[in-house]
Amino acid sequence: MDIFNPVDHPHRRYNPLTNQWVLVSPHRAKRPWQGQQEEINDEQKPSHDPTCFLCAGNKRVTGDINPDYKGTFVFTNDFAALIEDTPISPDNNDPLFQMQSARGTSRVICFSPDHSKTLPELDLSAIEGVIKTWISQQQELSKKYPWVQIFENKGSIMGCSNPHPHGQIWANSFLPNEIAREDLNMRNYYEKYQRNLLVDYVEKELKNRERIVVETKYWLAVVPFWAIWPFETLLLPKTHIPQLTQLTNDQQSDLAIALKKLTSRYDNLFRCSFPYSMGWHGAPFMQNKNDYWQVHAHFYPPLLRSATVKKFMVGYEMLAEVQRDLTPEQAAERLRNVSDMHYKNIKD
Amino acid sequence: MDIFNPVDHPHRRYNPLTNQWVLVSPHRAKRPWQGQQEEINDEQKPSHDPTCFLCAGNKRVTGDINPDYKGTFVFTNDFAALIEDTPISPDNNDPLFQMQSARGTSRVICFSPDHSKTLPELDLSAIEGVIKTWISQQQELSKKYPWVQIFENKGSIMGCSNPHPHGQIWANSFLPNEIAREDLNMRNYYEKYQRNLLVDYVEKELKNRERIVVETKYWLAVVPFWAIWPFETLLLPKTHIPQLTQLTNDQQSDLAIALKKLTSRYDNLFRCSFPYSMGWHGAPFMQNKNDYWQVHAHFYPPLLRSATVKKFMVGYEMLAEVQRDLTPEQAAERLRNVSDMHYKNIKD
Ligand SMILES: O=P(O)(O)O[C@H]1O[C@H](CO)[C@@H](O)[C@H](O)[C@H]1O
Ligand SMILES: O=P(O)(O)O[C@H]1O[C@H](CO)[C@@H](O)[C@H](O)[C@H]1O
Repeated sequence: MDIFNPVDHPHRRYNPLTNQWVLVSPHRAKRPWQGQQEEINDEQKPSHDPTCFLCAGNKRVTGDINPDYKGTFVFTNDFAALIEDTPISPDNNDPLFQMQSARGTSRVICFSPDHSKTLPELDLSAIEGVIKTWISQQQELSKKYPWVQIFENKGSIMGCSNPHPHGQIWANSFLPNEIAREDLNMRNYYEKYQRNLLVDYVEKELKNRERIVVETKYWLAVVPFWAIWPFETLLLPKTHIPQLTQLTNDQQSDLAIALKKLTSRYDNLFRCSFPYSMGWHGAPFMQNKNDYWQVHAHFYPPLLRSATVKKFMVGYEMLAEVQRDLTPEQAAERLRNVSDMHYKNIKD
Repeated sequence: MDIFNPVDHPHRRYNPLTNQWVLVSPHRAKRPWQGQQEEINDEQKPSHDPTCFLCAGNKRVTGDINPDYKGTFVFTNDFAALIEDTPISPDNNDPLFQMQSARGTSRVICFSPDHSKTLPELDLSAIEGVIKTWISQQQELSKKYPWVQIFENKGSIMGCSNPHPHGQIWANSFLPNEIAREDLNMRNYYEKYQRNLLVDYVEKELKNRERIVVETKYWLAVVPFWAIWPFETLLLPKTHIPQLTQLTNDQQSDLAIALKKLTSRYDNLFRCSFPYSMGWHGAPFMQNKNDYWQVHAHFYPPLLRSATVKKFMVGYEMLAEVQRDLTPEQAAERLRNVSDMHYKNIKD
């Protein structure tokens, strides 16, 4: 019998943050693809689009006029998934029909007035402005809500309906599933080993190095050992920091560098504006113990083989277990092999 | 303050099978959609396509020739995600880097030689043939594997790369995530209440009736109280049956009726070949206690508003919690309001 080798042999890897497994089938990347192809839209966009409802000075669906903003601009989503004053739902003790009312708010955050740019194309000070807005939004909303989800859907393939550079912030009166899971698993690890799960993980990745994609003074981006999406990454500080709101100015500026490098590598991989959903997880607010938490961002990009062929998380993945077609180490290597300077800024 | 009303107010519902919540934001269905539109391909296909590698008599990528089959036809996937003889992976006691080798097989099952048809368009005896093939495959593969996942990806939007009517069967040497979760939750319920979770659930849905989509002699399809996808359904027997392999002939024939009605309603909703991933869950094999299990099929269709606008499970959904834009009761009503006879068979 052969000797087991993770580059050739199907195997499962364990995600200690979610307590779930992922099936890795590295040999499957060889199969030909005859299925759906995504469209690429790489036409040059104008810096101001009069029909865009996120551009400065324009009118939104509701009739509100956007201010003539220069940096970032935050407003309440015109079609928010959550509202602030949901009435309390009645109790029901049937374990099969449990329902609870949800309160919260949804905001949109424009990253820049420049309609033509995406995160990696903004300059460092503009990216720093985005980070400062994330932090001040969390500071404000955490007074009222235990959870403030900051995220960005980039690209129409990720359900983003407007190419203007923007993200979202959804505040919740409850701890959403994914957070409750990470919270539980990090807490269990802390109780068992008296150590922080992700701080331990960072230390080991810094030693091993084969999954590292970007390293800056304070930050590290790796394709995690348990990555689900082909080029998924985890971005986190190299030292123990439970929440985004606890970053020093230095750590914020350095985060701008890490974000610019990581998203530039993404765009360079298939020479396209790389679609993804990304977002921040940190210690929930209104909790008194936070030591077991480490702030981090997840990047979930769907592309697999090229700018037009994505990974479909369907069938087996939905019904049984998520599955990936290349190893996390192979993905990290490919991301390391491209430049961390955006291809549009490199003259051939 | 208003009185809570699940049709107007955001709320969360609990899924007792997965121990996870779903955020329901019913008012959000009103927002305009300016994002990606899917392509519809409703051209009439030929009954035999010489370029299709699933049609009878044709040559596959590997060079193998398909037999001149008349009913169903099963073969091992030419690019299987699992192989039968993976070597055992070495032990590693680092809790952050857990890996285990995976064994199994992947098979393709052609539902019919007729390239132009989909499940709802096949006649009842052909659908019964598919059910009998599912059962005999499970009987065979369960001798070697504890888990045999039967599923179908339908439509290119669901990653299906060939329109020929077919499904897949992946056998696993391990219990995949979703099964391990359902197993745990059904077992816990059984221990707590000495009753079967899904049998209790069926009883209550049969009384309440507002989430029922299809009811036949032995089978029931409902939009579950905790549905994630807009028109998700759960199809299960009305009496206690842990595994597909335990169905009587009568229950199999009646399942063909239920499947035909359910998938016809799906196609009728937006008058298109309704895409979905569907698959069967039943008691794992090689386990001695099965009483707490009830066999069931999940249908996960992505469409939200029309044949071209799907629900994007991105951003907030990936990072925090899945979210839906209409209530399960509204979805069930819409599916009940269309005919259970396929629109292509109804003369206007
Ligand atoms: O095996 P297929 O049909 O080529 O591939 C499809 O189904 C598989 C099982 O759900 C998925 O892993 C693939 O991402 C999807 O494209
Ligand atoms: O709010 P948007 O950008 O219109 O909508 C997008 O992001 C939301 C939050 O991830 C999702 O619920 C929607 O399905 C998606 O289309």
